[in-house]
Amino acid sequence: MARYKVILAYDGTHFQGFQRQEPGVRTVQGEVEQALRCLGWQGRSILSAGRTDTGVHASGQVITFDFEWKHSTTALNRAVNAHLPPDVAAVDVSFTSEDFHPRFDAFLRTYRYRIYCAEVRNPLLDRFAWRVWPAVDPEFLQSAATLLVGTHDFAAFGAPPQTGGSTLRTVYAASWKSNAGDLEFEISANAFLYHMVRRIVFLQVLIGKKQLSLEDLSQAVQQTRSLTPGLAPPNGLYLTEVRYPSK
Amino acid sequence: MARYKVILAYDGTHFQGFQRQEPGVRTVQGEVEQALRCLGWQGRSILSAGRTDTGVHASGQVITFDFEWKHSTTALNRAVNAHLPPDVAAVDVSFTSEDFHPRFDAFLRTYRYRIYCAEVRNPLLDRFAWRVWPAVDPEFLQSAATLLVGTHDFAAFGAPPQTGGSTLRTVYAASWKSNAGDLEFEISANAFLYHMVRRIVFLQVLIGKKQLSLEDLSQAVQQTRSLTPGLAPPNGLYLTEVRYPSK
Repeated sequence: MARYKVILAYDGTHFQGFQRQEPGVRTVQGEVEQALRCLGWQGRSILSAGRTDTGVHASGQVITFDFEWKHSTTALNRAVNAHLPPDVAAVDVSFTSEDFHPRFDAFLRTYRYRIYCAEVRNPLLDRFAWRVWPAVDPEFLQSAATLLVGTHDFAAFGAPPQTGGSTLRTVYAASWKSNAGDLEFEISANAFLYHMVRRIVFLQVLIGKKQLSLEDLSQAVQQTRSLTPGLAPPNGLYLTEVRYPSK
Repeated sequence: MARYKVILAYDGTHFQGFQRQEPGVRTVQGEVEQALRCLGWQGRSILSAGRTDTGVHASGQVITFDFEWKHSTTALNRAVNAHLPPDVAAVDVSFTSEDFHPRFDAFLRTYRYRIYCAEVRNPLLDRFAWRVWPAVDPEFLQSAATLLVGTHDFAAFGAPPQTGGSTLRTVYAASWKSNAGDLEFEISANAFLYHMVRRIVFLQVLIGKKQLSLEDLSQAVQQTRSLTPGLAPPNGLYLTEVRYPSK
């Protein structure tokens, strides 16, 4: 029996999120476990780095499971992909230590969020990006992102995994890249609160539209101000990377 | 009654091509005509710049129709989009002259084709790009593209719209852009033969994999050599622009 670490990519459009639910609800975890069972895996549950919401995508989700597999990791990667539906794929399969935990051992998570500014919807972009109009000023977005970096109490931006849990998080980097009307936000933190990235994107867009000031955001980060409720839609969000200490 | 010119964008994944067919077959033309009928249009058929194949996308398809519409073009654009399904949208609506024909008046058509080089499939890219592995050398692709530019008999690369019709076409530009493992081909010509772009992409990929030589392609353009059959899949292909003489 060995422990495997797998990097997963998925198009979240047709999933009710990552986490397995009751039978009949299509989830990423459910599909992966079913693929593994076809290969003879008899475990109860895979472990994951995080539970992405309904409609959220991933290019760097990390999962682990113990499995008695007689062939190479490359062969396991191929076999898993052969049993997965087209909207999920194992990008990489490797051995890991028997005490590795993809959630508890992670020290950095990175998400991306894509926006496009256009008056009319674009069927070629809608699946993977949020349409925003009127156009937002990328410099305002960047100024807003800069305010988020550091260790702060992010209580105004999301809920902790357990009721009453800490809402302190450390954002290591937050920045926007812009290319014509396409805008991409990237944020890395030690961990995120529930809905935190979508809430942050929503608020930055309000700032980009001049419906909220940088001062307001700054005060919310300092816990001295409440904020307009709202979330950016899930389809623009991607879990892109989870990092672990090298052994 | 005025004639309208509309630029259409669509995700071709769930269409059996552009052209209307028997009832029950989902086509772009069928959806657009149905949306127009909801607005009171009573025409028999819209006209288009070209008939894209099953699975092919567009960001710059051009259609025309005559319509007695009492409001602005902006209002027509919104109204059409409100009646179209999420995978088609009118990007722009304008007036045009009453003798304008989107196919016969076009002097330049541009297509793009997206490829990504990866050993494992990527659910975030598969809808809009062709996965190629082993990786192909972008410089070989570019050398191949250069051979296509000019006025040539492209009989080896596709079929004319009418049996026995001319297979002479003028390619004005053909080039590859590469960014990490992502490759994008853009080709502009006065017109294209049936399947011509997908065939050209397929052959260039063979050259990129060193399974076909530049000399072979050059001879095929000169009509002195036959070629391996094969087409690149439709999902990487986009009709991006159709140009007309300015009045």
